[in-house]
Amino acid sequence: MTTIHDLQTPALLIDRGALERNLATMSAALPGVRLRPHVKAHKCTALARMQAQAGHATFTCATIREVEGMAAAGLGDDLLLANEVLDARRLGAVVESGARVTAAIDSEETVASAVDGGVLEVVVDVNVGLPRCGCAPADAGRLADLARARGLEVRGVMGYEGHLMLVADVEERRKQVEECMARLLAAHADVGGDIVSAGGTGTYAVNTWANEIQAGSYALMDTAYGAVADLPFEQALTVLGTVISTTGPAEGIPGWAVVDVGLKSLGMDHGNPTVPGGVVWFCSDEHTTWQPEPFESVRLGDRARVLPAHVDPTIALHERMWLVDGDDVVGELPVDLRGW
Amino acid sequence: MTTIHDLQTPALLIDRGALERNLATMSAALPGVRLRPHVKAHKCTALARMQAQAGHATFTCATIREVEGMAAAGLGDDLLLANEVLDARRLGAVVESGARVTAAIDSEETVASAVDGGVLEVVVDVNVGLPRCGCAPADAGRLADLARARGLEVRGVMGYEGHLMLVADVEERRKQVEECMARLLAAHADVGGDIVSAGGTGTYAVNTWANEIQAGSYALMDTAYGAVADLPFEQALTVLGTVISTTGPAEGIPGWAVVDVGLKSLGMDHGNPTVPGGVVWFCSDEHTTWQPEPFESVRLGDRARVLPAHVDPTIALHERMWLVDGDDVVGELPVDLRGW
Repeated sequence: MTTIHDLQTPALLIDRGALERNLATMSAALPGVRLRPHVKAHKCTALARMQAQAGHATFTCATIREVEGMAAAGLGDDLLLANEVLDARRLGAVVESGARVTAAIDSEETVASAVDGGVLEVVVDVNVGLPRCGCAPADAGRLADLARARGLEVRGVMGYEGHLMLVADVEERRKQVEECMARLLAAHADVGGDIVSAGGTGTYAVNTWANEIQAGSYALMDTAYGAVADLPFEQALTVLGTVISTTGPAEGIPGWAVVDVGLKSLGMDHGNPTVPGGVVWFCSDEHTTWQPEPFESVRLGDRARVLPAHVDPTIALHERMWLVDGDDVVGELPVDLRGW
Repeated sequence: MTTIHDLQTPALLIDRGALERNLATMSAALPGVRLRPHVKAHKCTALARMQAQAGHATFTCATIREVEGMAAAGLGDDLLLANEVLDARRLGAVVESGARVTAAIDSEETVASAVDGGVLEVVVDVNVGLPRCGCAPADAGRLADLARARGLEVRGVMGYEGHLMLVADVEERRKQVEECMARLLAAHADVGGDIVSAGGTGTYAVNTWANEIQAGSYALMDTAYGAVADLPFEQALTVLGTVISTTGPAEGIPGWAVVDVGLKSLGMDHGNPTVPGGVVWFCSDEHTTWQPEPFESVRLGDRARVLPAHVDPTIALHERMWLVDGDDVVGELPVDLRGW
């Protein structure tokens, strides 16, 4: 049996039990097509296959590479690229290969790129309050008409209330989601089609207006979501490191330890990682320096599990994840959807 | 001729002229073995080969993968792993293959791992003031004796004054570097050997005590180093994106644009990137939302060059870099030293 002590560090570990419980909890709440799992969260077709086995045959992607990889892995029954592209030729090639690809459009130019690239189906992306992509709700019908006039099938609308994922109070979150979804439903009335796609892990339970939820983080979870007390998902991902250097207390300076997990193996946009049983001082390219409490609790050569502050960009830095049961390694999951 | 308009975005661009000037400037200041270029900054054997052509046959690495990749690329004349490892077997295999590998040691355990792994040569890593790896200066001689007793060749010492790279005032920087190097030279007196290795881009000119400088950032440079006015190097790396969505000013809210460069194509540990001609609002996984000034200066489909806040971890997220001359693409540089 391979154990975590045999792994080259840094290495991503997924707690199998936590992952399986997260998948089961979400699939019970949003069975089948009510959930359109977002693969950007894990960039891993093996993990997407576990979501498919849990009953979800439709997926959300953020990049062309994710669409291509999912189709190549045989998971292309219904792929939504929930993002705008101005050159859709690679998406057209995926459609040619037999997968179903729906692209988001929010402008005349993105309609034209879908047509020119060989994409056959679109949803109208509507700005519901997050200042990012998406047309004004009142403009959605016009874009749908234009798309249909250009020969595209318009399947409905999407709109992402991403700014509400971390609203701590669940009733306040529900109220604000309702306001956002009122904009999306108004657009949907003008656009038509079957799909009203929205939401994420933070709003999966309170967004009862969308008919499919684009959640991804729920599978492995994020430290930031820890502030959202009502979410029933467990943090399943850690970065395994090796303690490569220790310096004992001296001259009033507390002792510190160094683990070989740094900026290049951690998503840092939400700040420093956490090392349980200690206080992180700073990260370098390949190191995190932290103060174990007490110092004697850590020894050179120990393995340490570091909690990244943001899971999605952490995974994007790694070639693979290891599925573990305690210290036993029970599977390898290649991160095969990286790049663009 | 391929131009930047043909590239899939996001894409890393290296300004060829700036890179060539940076390489030439550094090689004039620190010719040959006076510079031991650090490949962690670019993780690219093609770029390392340009440094070798500029006269530098010795290199610094931060990871085992970097050592393996450099050796496999024929750049293994003298590779220093300036980092501690507790399992050196893969390094021993590189030595077996005919490359020269020197590992850093700072403890009895790292001496043992070098011996057990088949590494033949080491330097003693000395803590000169940055709380990370490295033994106490007074302990360096004991570790060197131990290493020699175990049959290792001890080539000298290294010590990284990384906390001084961004000291803005050059005289203050020089003074603090001198204090750090006094510790390193004291250790060297006990250790012996030819190598006194230290420094980085921020201290390459003021560290006159080390006999080789481990600079890496100078080739492509970093936004953070912009605060260090005396450095003669130019920022050579940008992330090319496509403007995929724009929303005009309305109801007192200024207009914004979205470029397809986000958390997953940017090192974020130093904060948000910069978009020239605008103000960045926030980054998402695959987007940066910013306010162009004036709004009319940006059009949907435009290419935008985003300046990452930190170059090293930005590169680690990409598969390749494109060498450009203006908008012309004149070369492709694979980022082939990623992973561990």
